[in-house]
Amino acid sequence: MTSNLLERLLRGEQRALSIAITMVERMQPGVAELMSEVDRHTGNAYTIGITGPPGAGKSTIVTELTKLLRDADKKVGIIAVDPTSPFTGGAILGDRIRMQNHYMDPEVFIRSVATRGQSGGLSRVVKTLTRLLDASGKDIIILETVGVGQTEVSIMQAADSVLVALVPESGDAIQTLKAGLMEIADLYLVNKSDRSGAAQMASAITNTIQMASPIPPWAPPVIMTQANTGKGLDEVWDNINNHQEYLKHSSELGTRRSNRRKHEYLETVEEEMGRRLRVAVESDKRISGIVKEIETGSQDPYSAAIELINASQGISYLDI
Amino acid sequence: MTSNLLERLLRGEQRALSIAITMVERMQPGVAELMSEVDRHTGNAYTIGITGPPGAGKSTIVTELTKLLRDADKKVGIIAVDPTSPFTGGAILGDRIRMQNHYMDPEVFIRSVATRGQSGGLSRVVKTLTRLLDASGKDIIILETVGVGQTEVSIMQAADSVLVALVPESGDAIQTLKAGLMEIADLYLVNKSDRSGAAQMASAITNTIQMASPIPPWAPPVIMTQANTGKGLDEVWDNINNHQEYLKHSSELGTRRSNRRKHEYLETVEEEMGRRLRVAVESDKRISGIVKEIETGSQDPYSAAIELINASQGISYLDI
Repeated sequence: MTSNLLERLLRGEQRALSIAITMVERMQPGVAELMSEVDRHTGNAYTIGITGPPGAGKSTIVTELTKLLRDADKKVGIIAVDPTSPFTGGAILGDRIRMQNHYMDPEVFIRSVATRGQSGGLSRVVKTLTRLLDASGKDIIILETVGVGQTEVSIMQAADSVLVALVPESGDAIQTLKAGLMEIADLYLVNKSDRSGAAQMASAITNTIQMASPIPPWAPPVIMTQANTGKGLDEVWDNINNHQEYLKHSSELGTRRSNRRKHEYLETVEEEMGRRLRVAVESDKRISGIVKEIETGSQDPYSAAIELINASQGISYLDI
Repeated sequence: MTSNLLERLLRGEQRALSIAITMVERMQPGVAELMSEVDRHTGNAYTIGITGPPGAGKSTIVTELTKLLRDADKKVGIIAVDPTSPFTGGAILGDRIRMQNHYMDPEVFIRSVATRGQSGGLSRVVKTLTRLLDASGKDIIILETVGVGQTEVSIMQAADSVLVALVPESGDAIQTLKAGLMEIADLYLVNKSDRSGAAQMASAITNTIQMASPIPPWAPPVIMTQANTGKGLDEVWDNINNHQEYLKHSSELGTRRSNRRKHEYLETVEEEMGRRLRVAVESDKRISGIVKEIETGSQDPYSAAIELINASQGISYLDI
């Protein structure tokens, strides 16, 4: 079954991709076998990450960028990292409705990845999914995150080029950038640039970039866009290509990608151990007994954790 | 030395607290022993979390709330989760300058926790630190985060009451709440409420709360504040007390706290395993060999991770 799935995946079948993605998200048994085959067929796609504060127009940017990429006959895969909330599910769906035309396009694959529960897991999941989309023949993969925080920043590790989108009224720009975005931005978009304050914001960012010490070899360009009309998106795409050229010539593309592979490995080990531990909390009498004592206060959480690791030469509870 | 540290910590000595916090952040060997003693002295402090998008005035809210708490003779501990960025270090320092008066106050302890590197770790670190501050005699612990994302949401697990601060111009409020904040808010603050759009924002949030199904037993109040003048902070504090009463009477306080302890345990096991693995990448020939193969593309990261866990009955590389 997996070899059949693999063939269908490599042919770019959307249904096969969907199945494989669900397997990866759930860390199902067949994933290791599948990924070791998939991996041989990766390395052709270029990955673009888009992040920024809520309301910056990221979904619109993705929609318009996709239109432009489709006009250039590129196959596109989109991974949208969406929080799942009973309150806001509708709002997210609203965003996605704008993507409707792309949903009909067989050469565009769109998948939302939920953030509920796991906080460490998304960074790992997104890296693995990026390789799946790559192997399925996508030319460009777009990663979009909703929030601005540490998890979102770490998700951007999976991208070759990182776009940070801001709008004039998104609080103080520098406040927004406090969330760690300046360290990862390869390109800035000042979106909704017809609003007042856009030019000032763009020059404030440019000034901050120029103040950096030491001067980085790649100075992130700051581009004014109005994504709802598509304005500025051509320039964004040109600059993504410039950045790609820079990465290739400076050998940083290889460094970024091998670093990403290393982190995927480490994150997968940690996460799979964590997953097995959480199963053990439910199914293993010893572990569930410890947890009960911790909950009621008769054991300290931290020292119990260290004790468990130190005591279990064999970490036998992992063998489940 | 640790027993001396413990005594000084329990007496509330700031220097001892600082040392212990650094030990926790670095997962140093003495921490397990220290925490198992510390844990017996916890349970008295009440923890308030403050989150919201950048620019919402969270630092000012914390400063003013602290002033109010000090007037009521409460001992206060503040944990500020700050990203560390070479670009924005100065900006954060700027915020902290407003806290200057409190820095001089021996009954106020302020600590910034850096987010660099680890993405999973902060949620664990903050839970452990909260217990340290509790044992050191603080009456109120305030947790402040900078971004709005999954890590920040999970940090708020450590709080008894979660305050979400917004400002009228922080993009579309509902967009901001997309980042998962509605699921965790116990109180909303519409800060900078002298600005236009504040009343509309407050009623939009109230309407969204009322639309929730099923109706939650605690309906989060929405409070207008102008933190820079202290306006509305009394009302915030009253509502925190109401929420605390609600938690106690509904037995949810106990549930939240035991749940937090369980998660601290699971997170510490995962993180310590991860830490030992990362040491092994540098020091263990077998692991560093695998990583090299993964980086160069001759092994797949995912399947190599599963293979490592499955093969190591004894997970011997953890015994370092």
